[in-house]
Amino acid sequence: MDLRVDIITLAVADLDEAHAFYANRLGWHPALAIPGEVTFFLAGPGRMIGLFGRRDLERDIGDRGQVPPFDLGQLFHTPAEVDAAVEAMVAAGAKVRKPPQRPEFFEGYHAYVETPDGTVWELVYNPGFHFDSEGTPHFA
Amino acid sequence: MDLRVDIITLAVADLDEAHAFYANRLGWHPALAIPGEVTFFLAGPGRMIGLFGRRDLERDIGDRGQVPPFDLGQLFHTPAEVDAAVEAMVAAGAKVRKPPQRPEFFEGYHAYVETPDGTVWELVYNPGFHFDSEGTPHFA
Repeated sequence: MDLRVDIITLAVADLDEAHAFYANRLGWHPALAIPGEVTFFLAGPGRMIGLFGRRDLERDIGDRGQVPPFDLGQLFHTPAEVDAAVEAMVAAGAKVRKPPQRPEFFEGYHAYVETPDGTVWELVYNPGFHFDSEGTPHFA
Repeated sequence: MDLRVDIITLAVADLDEAHAFYANRLGWHPALAIPGEVTFFLAGPGRMIGLFGRRDLERDIGDRGQVPPFDLGQLFHTPAEVDAAVEAMVAAGAKVRKPPQRPEFFEGYHAYVETPDGTVWELVYNPGFHFDSEGTPHFA
């Protein structure tokens, strides 16, 4: 199984301050910003950085385990592909942090797994978001 | 200033085990693997994941500060571009973890800066590595 990184989520202690640094002071134009919830920046063709509050990530993972400082997200086209990716990663030695299910924050399907090195991956089906063939993001 | 993520470096406690998980057990084919030093995987067009030992990252940053669990790397075409990026990030409120200089691990020029949210960015000029227009990596 080849992994792909589509979204790098930074779990920040202070979302407003992180947004202010990257967007206002550094001048990076957000691809999407929902105040108090999330800010996305295009970080090159086909990849985005998401700023997400640590407490929100903790709640999104929901297993009361350690909140990772970041997670790596891979987008899939169907829920079945998410299931298959989770199974492949678990077979290789990853542990499930959140079994595949409908997310709280968007319509779709996702899971969190943690690899033995401690990296958390979010495996996601999100019909409300995709990159086109040029790597440009589109939100429904 | 728009940032770009070209390389996601995972600072792993056990490089051999992390390599074994991703490459041997999950079956992700490395783009480059130097045993005991680093393993790179293509994580989509124009982006790579690097597995790098925590102690090596600590030494590479070299400021005796906290070793980050990961860093985000952006490639530049010249040392002057690295300098300019460091200046822009510092002006926005980032702190320098390693001033621009010749790295120990490769021929080139790099710096580490830490943003207010705690994310460490490596700003790099590396004439021995580039992505072509298709996003395929090439090592010199």
